Order: sequence, then C-alpha cells, then structure tokens
Amino acid sequence: MRSDIDGLMAKRELQAVIISGGEHPNTIRRYLSNGIDIHGGLVVKKLGEAPALIVGIMEIEEAQKTGLTVLTHNDFEYAQILKAAEGDANKATIIFWGKILEKFAIPAGKIGLYGTGDLHIIIERVKQLAAMYPQYEFVGETGMTLFDEAFVTKDADEIRIIREVAQKTSDVLQATWDFIGSHSADGETVVKADGSALTIGDVKRFVRRALLDVELEDTDMIFAQGRDGGFPHSRGESKDGLKLGQPIVFDLFPRQLGGGYFHDVTRTWCIGHAPEKVQKIYDTVMQAFKIAVDSYEEPGQPTKTMQEAVMTYFEEQGHPTGRSQPGTTVGYVHSLGHGVGLNIHERPSISHLAKEDVFQKGNFITIEPGLYYPEEGIGMRVEDSFIIDENGALVSITPFRKDLVLPLRGAQ
Amino acid sequence: MRSDIDGLMAKRELQAVIISGGEHPNTIRRYLSNGIDIHGGLVVKKLGEAPALIVGIMEIEEAQKTGLTVLTHNDFEYAQILKAAEGDANKATIIFWGKILEKFAIPAGKIGLYGTGDLHIIIERVKQLAAMYPQYEFVGETGMTLFDEAFVTKDADEIRIIREVAQKTSDVLQATWDFIGSHSADGETVVKADGSALTIGDVKRFVRRALLDVELEDTDMIFAQGRDGGFPHSRGESKDGLKLGQPIVFDLFPRQLGGGYFHDVTRTWCIGHAPEKVQKIYDTVMQAFKIAVDSYEEPGQPTKTMQEAVMTYFEEQGHPTGRSQPGTTVGYVHSLGHGVGLNIHERPSISHLAKEDVFQKGNFITIEPGLYYPEEGIGMRVEDSFIIDENGALVSITPFRKDLVLPLRGAQ
Repeated sequence: MRSDIDGLMAKRELQAVIISGGEHPNTIRRYLSNGIDIHGGLVVKKLGEAPALIVGIMEIEEAQKTGLTVLTHNDFEYAQILKAAEGDANKATIIFWGKILEKFAIPAGKIGLYGTGDLHIIIERVKQLAAMYPQYEFVGETGMTLFDEAFVTKDADEIRIIREVAQKTSDVLQATWDFIGSHSADGETVVKADGSALTIGDVKRFVRRALLDVELEDTDMIFAQGRDGGFPHSRGESKDGLKLGQPIVFDLFPRQLGGGYFHDVTRTWCIGHAPEKVQKIYDTVMQAFKIAVDSYEEPGQPTKTMQEAVMTYFEEQGHPTGRSQPGTTVGYVHSLGHGVGLNIHERPSISHLAKEDVFQKGNFITIEPGLYYPEEGIGMRVEDSFIIDENGALVSITPFRKDLVLPLRGAQ
Repeated sequence: MRSDIDGLMAKRELQAVIISGGEHPNTIRRYLSNGIDIHGGLVVKKLGEAPALIVGIMEIEEAQKTGLTVLTHNDFEYAQILKAAEGDANKATIIFWGKILEKFAIPAGKIGLYGTGDLHIIIERVKQLAAMYPQYEFVGETGMTLFDEAFVTKDADEIRIIREVAQKTSDVLQATWDFIGSHSADGETVVKADGSALTIGDVKRFVRRALLDVELEDTDMIFAQGRDGGFPHSRGESKDGLKLGQPIVFDLFPRQLGGGYFHDVTRTWCIGHAPEKVQKIYDTVMQAFKIAVDSYEEPGQPTKTMQEAVMTYFEEQGHPTGRSQPGTTVGYVHSLGHGVGLNIHERPSISHLAKEDVFQKGNFITIEPGLYYPEEGIGMRVEDSFIIDENGALVSITPFRKDLVLPLRGAQ
C-alpha cells in the first residue's frame, strides 16, 4: 500500500522515483497523486519525502486538486530552457529534468523511472539522461516491481472505494438481468416488443448506460454467446441476437468514470433454459469455484495452492488444464485469478506458475474458474472479486446471484 | 499514412519494428492492426512485409478480426519456454522475442521498438535484449518519430471515419445546446423543472449519454465556467450550477467507443446574455480564428506562420502571448492547434516554436485560439477541426454554430 513505498524504494536503493509518460492514462501517477491523474506531467518522489507534481501551466488548476505540492514549468524557467535549446523540445526536456533533480536535491545514485507512456521515447531518453547526468543511474524494473508490490495490498481508503464500485457493479448486473428477463422469445430468439431480435449490441448499450448512471465506465466488456464464449477473451458479436439455451459468458470489468478502481465479475447465463450438457459443465465450474474458495486458509499461503486444487479437480473430471496439457486451447485454459485495483490485472497472480505470490491481508483479487469447448458451442466462467480482510478472511464483495438460467418473464 | 511506413522505416534503416506494451491502450498497435487494438500482444513488421500479430491463445478470436496474420504463443512453444525459464516470465519473454526474430528471419541490424506501455519494463527489457542478441541494435526514437510522421497524413479510409465522428460530435453539441436551452432561470441561476440548479455535472452526464447513443465516448471533457474557464485545462466543477452571463468553455474531444479516431471542438457559451466585456473579448477570439483560417495558403507552408499571424493580432489588441511574454499565464497562453487522429494530440504542431512542421494534404488538425484572464472570470476558446483535402484546401469538418449567447427558451 501507499505507506510501503519508502520501504520499497529503500530496498531497491532508489534515491528517487520519477513517474513520467505524457498524457497517457497512468495508474502509477494516479496512485501517487491521491487518485487524480493529471493529463500529463511528472511525479517526483524523493526517498523519505512526499511526492510532488510538476505540470504545464495549463494543468495547474486540476493539479492542485491532488493535494500534492505542485510546481509548473515556469518554476523551472522552461520557456528559457526551450529557447536556449533552439526550440528542440527533446533537448529541452533533458535540461529540464536536470533542473528538477537539482531543485529536489536528489543525492547521486539510483533513480527509478516508472509509469505508462511512449516506449520509444523512454528508450532514448534514458540514454540521454545517463550521458548528461553521470552521477545518476536511471533504472527501470521488470518482474515484481516496486509498484506491483505496493499495489498488492490496499489500505482502508482504497477498500472503501473498492466496495462501493463492487456494489454499483452488482446493481448493474441485476439491472441487466432484469432487462433481458423483461423480453420474450420467438422460437429460439429473444425478441423486443417490435418482434426484432434483442442483440448483444442492444445489451451492451444498456449496460454502458447503466454503468454511466452510477458513474462507472465500461472498459470493453465480454458478452459472448455459444461458440464465441468458448474463446475466453472474445468480446461477442454485437449484431447477433440472443438465443435460448446457449451459454453466454458475461464478463464485466468497469472502473470509476475517468479512470480509477476496477471491479471484475463474470457470470454465465443461459436464457430460458439450459440443455443438460450445459448444466453439467456449469455445475463442474461452480464446484471448482467452491473448491477454490474452500482451499483458502490464511495469509502467507502461496496463491498457487488454490489454482492447483482447481486443476486437480478439473483433471479428475476429465478436462485438460494448462498443467496437464501446457498450451491447451480447450478445457481450463487460464489462470484462476489475479489482483485488481487501478489496473484490471495486478499481482498477485493465482497461477500454478506463480512461485513468489502469496495471499496477504489487503489483497483485492478475482477467483474465476472456467471451461471452454468452442467447437461444442460452450464457454463457461464464474468470477467474483474478493478481498482478504483485516482478520485474514477471504470475503466475496460481488453480491450477485450465480443462477445459470435467466428466465424470460416478458410479454406472453 | 499507412502506405508510407516502409519508406519511413527505410529512412531510419530499421529492419523491423516491434510494437509492444501489454494491455495498455496502444494507438500504434491499433494503427498497424487496421483499427482494432487487441488487449495485449505484439505487432511485428519486417521491412517490406505486412505486419503480423502475436497474441496469447485467449485473444485469438479477436485478433483474427484485424485481418492480419495471427500467431499465438503456442506457435513459439511458449509454455515450454516458460518451463525452461523455471517460470520466470521476464526471462521467458527475452527467449520468446528471440524466437520471433528468428521466425520472421529479421536480418541483423536496427530494430525499432514502439508502442505505449510500462516504461520501467521496456527500460530493462532493452538492456536484456541487447545483451542476448548482439546482432541487433534495439532503438527507440524521440522528436518527430516514425509514427508521428505516418500519423501526420490520413488516407481516404481514415478521412471517411474522421468525418463521421465529426458529424456525430456536432450532433451532440446541438443536443447539448438544446438541452441547456430547454431550462429556465431563477435569478442568475439556470434551474431544472423542480427549481434546483442545473449543474455542470448534470450537463456532463447528458453529454456522456448523448455520446454513447452515437457510439462515441467522452475522454474527460472540459465544461468550465467563469474563473475555471480561465485555466485552459480546468475540467470545471461538477457541483456548480450554471449561471447566466458567465463565459463557459466547452471543449469536447470524444473518440470512437472503445478507442479510435477523435474529434476535437471547443465552443464558448454565455447563457442568457453576454456582458459587454465578455462579448468584446469573444469578438477578438473570433477575429483571431478568422485570421488563422485566412492565413492558410497551401500545403508546404510552415504551420508556425498561422500561429504568428494570430499572435501578432492578439499582441496588437494588447494581449500578452507566449511570444511577447514567454511563460505567461494570462492572455494567449497556448499553441494555436495540433494534429488529431487516434491520439488527441498529434503532429503537426501549430506553434511559433514548431520549426519543422508544415501543412500537408491529408492533415487533420485543430485551430483553437483563446484568451484567458481567470481573475476576471474570463476564459474563451473557439476551436474547429479541419482537414486539408486532396486539393490542398483547408476545410472545417465541425459544422456547428459559433454563437456566444445560448438563449434559454425554457418554462416561463
């Protein structure tokens, strides 16, 4: 969590971290800016000191809402720097960074560069910075990075927001269930009052509006029917009409409007009725979900134990898994879950290949077993989001029913 | 445009470009993938050959919609690589990249790395790639990059989409104008039927829904009233009620739902009536807008000539500019315009400091003069988007009125 950052910096012997990346959405910059991502600008955090924001003069009014110390380009006489660099913005940036390092009195040593942005720019900028300021070593990081480690646990303020987003998302699921259920069928097709098919596009439009009404935004939901649902990340075809008796994978992962905390939930629905084979596979997925939750014991437990429990069960039931058949495209083809936060995918990873990841108090994670047989028209996934609370208990924060069959109660 | 890419690669002596960046929205990846951005994956483009997509097995169904050649991790035996790397995903990635370079038979030499993603990862990845594959030089780029150059001109397919987005955005402006106009006033405050204030939050909610209805999405519009509008990028305060006679800067820059082409337009509105001083400054901004458009002559003209014409006019009228007072926070504080496309800000830059930028056929640009005096409660900006068509003509594609006063025709 945020309060860990100085310790995580010290462990890496970083004198400072600088978050850059221009106007791209930047979760690390948002994290250090108390939840507000300025469109552009740098965050500079010296070891042991509070982060500061450096922005263009046009951003100052928004930047001050972060509560951070805000400096503008004018505080570094950027206009003069740019003039001296004969209008070469790249050359000016290198000088500007030097002035920043000087102003914050960053001691010689390692400086960690983090953030989301243009890869091609940072690759060259690091070389130029290293050449210009040899007293510093400018470093990045792969693997379990500083901010991966910080993001792994959420503090009380974050959990409060995360629970709000969870409740709103569940409300939208309920509204979507009711919306679809209000229709009727014509043969095997779900139809609207005018007799035309209710399409996946119609449902997605409904969901996006329902999300907006509670200040959430869609980030490309999955609503995939039949064969499409058999490919875990297929989005579904907007023009397709909803059919009775076909499994639909509905994976909804909205976030706070304008960027912020995500929620992640999946349900599999069969409209009207479920064929026996579909019901059987669904029951297997639901049993896997139960096994996953029951396999949780306590903080400190390696996350891979949960995935292994699920894989063992699926394999016993005759389904291939990524352990029994690495690279399989049918059966159980993905990991069991992941951390969530300002990013939709964070650590910990709940995978049989995750060697370092353990459950911790303050985790916000998904549990999402699934089975996929696209050529049989079958894809199934059931997912709740959980937190591990201050007592070390694994608690679902997705209070929405897990019925497979969504009955139509529309006009007869 | 897309057809220039091989030439731009040859100019830089690049044997290949690789677009990486994980699941972050990635406009370069989208551009090379015919407008569809897969959530994750690499695009590899060898000099003289069509781009290819490499994705995880879960993404294959979406990836094939791009029309590109699609390979999956399985084609490179990634599961075995990961096992050999003892589950170390970072080490596995370096080996995986080597297999890709081998499979595409990329000749020794320079490889350009581009895209949007985690800066900290690419900084270290480049070092590891360089150490492992010394026959290649892995390079980034700053300044006017390969894709900046490509994006500068749009082809006919892109212009068609850009015009559609422009029309939809103008329709939403009209709907917003009508929505606000349908209200009435109580004293100096615009009120709803129940007598409560119509707030900026209400207007933004209306706009977001109206955008969704035409398959566009807001990307953090500006609707800033009075003093707030005097800070060019202040978003406005959602809780504030709309007031009569105060200038409101409404800068709307939506894009196609899920990512895609932007439109960029700004209007300044005064509800009910405009005080004389506000009208006078607005007339000055409108005259600057006309001067800007009239200063355009032909393709090949340096863009800075347009900004210089506007600055000269503003300075003659007694307003400080970034040329007369570098770093000024009042008067005319920003550049005149910029390219637009899959990114909201692209080249060319229309700035007095832009030394290389010239107007070209196929440009999609904004022209947006403004004046800002926050302590006087004044911010003004008027912006249309333009294309430079196949005849070299500068054509506005924002067909929406530029009236300052938005009259209320609501309940009496």
